[in-house]
Amino acid sequence: MTSKAFQHYYPESLAHCYGCGHLNEHGHHIESFWEGDESVCRFTPKPYHTAVPGFVYGGLLASLIDCHGTGTAAAAAYRAEGRTMDTEPPLRFVTASLHVDYLKPTPLGPELEVRATVGEIKGRKVVVKERLLCDGVECVRGEVVAVQIPEDFGR
Amino acid sequence: MTSKAFQHYYPESLAHCYGCGHLNEHGHHIESFWEGDESVCRFTPKPYHTAVPGFVYGGLLASLIDCHGTGTAAAAAYRAEGRTMDTEPPLRFVTASLHVDYLKPTPLGPELEVRATVGEIKGRKVVVKERLLCDGVECVRGEVVAVQIPEDFGR
Repeated sequence: MTSKAFQHYYPESLAHCYGCGHLNEHGHHIESFWEGDESVCRFTPKPYHTAVPGFVYGGLLASLIDCHGTGTAAAAAYRAEGRTMDTEPPLRFVTASLHVDYLKPTPLGPELEVRATVGEIKGRKVVVKERLLCDGVECVRGEVVAVQIPEDFGR
Repeated sequence: MTSKAFQHYYPESLAHCYGCGHLNEHGHHIESFWEGDESVCRFTPKPYHTAVPGFVYGGLLASLIDCHGTGTAAAAAYRAEGRTMDTEPPLRFVTASLHVDYLKPTPLGPELEVRATVGEIKGRKVVVKERLLCDGVECVRGEVVAVQIPEDFGR
């Protein structure tokens, strides 16, 4: 069975995110999948995604934490409702707050792995805790507080 | 007098950051300047820097908070030493932690303004507090804990 990334279940009207929207032709196309109770995102930065030479740009790492976090929040909310991501109504989350701790410089070159666990689901809010690894070494820790998109979003 | 952005004083070997390095041809070229005791960064996102349509991608907003924070930290450290940014030795900071609160969706289109104040300078650590405004409305708040690059960075 080939699993489909969480982000490919987003409604088309909400699939233009620069980080993870599959309809954004300039974007990063971040993708997330379940592996048991953890969700995983694998991403190889481009050579120009540099901080100081040899290491990955912190803003890109924050983007990975961010989009993997909102994707995991959506997937967890479906799970909590006991239904799959291809069922209606769609659930889509945005970031209320983002925290990133840069434990050590992240080497630029290898594929990175972001692993997330769901810390709390409360009403429309989901807290996601994340670790970013390079060659098995934890370089970054992050936390996303995600909230389900309100009907009046941006009005 | 035309002032030069903080980031243009970075040593060439440390000026390749995807967010703010003027030598990164693919990057955002984030620039920061003093305006009295506050530092200011102005940036107009590209049309494809979208979250959900009509609003700015949160990962880009985090990048603005990040690079404006480390730039402000460097500028503040020179000020604290009573010298200008064109004097030796150079001071360059990296992010130890980044926190971003998304208060409301940030409209995509207008120029954004990030305003920062220096909260604390202690040893090699500088804490920078930031507000991001769109048309004068505060959309994002952020805090960066920046540390001066250690001599053994990345070893």
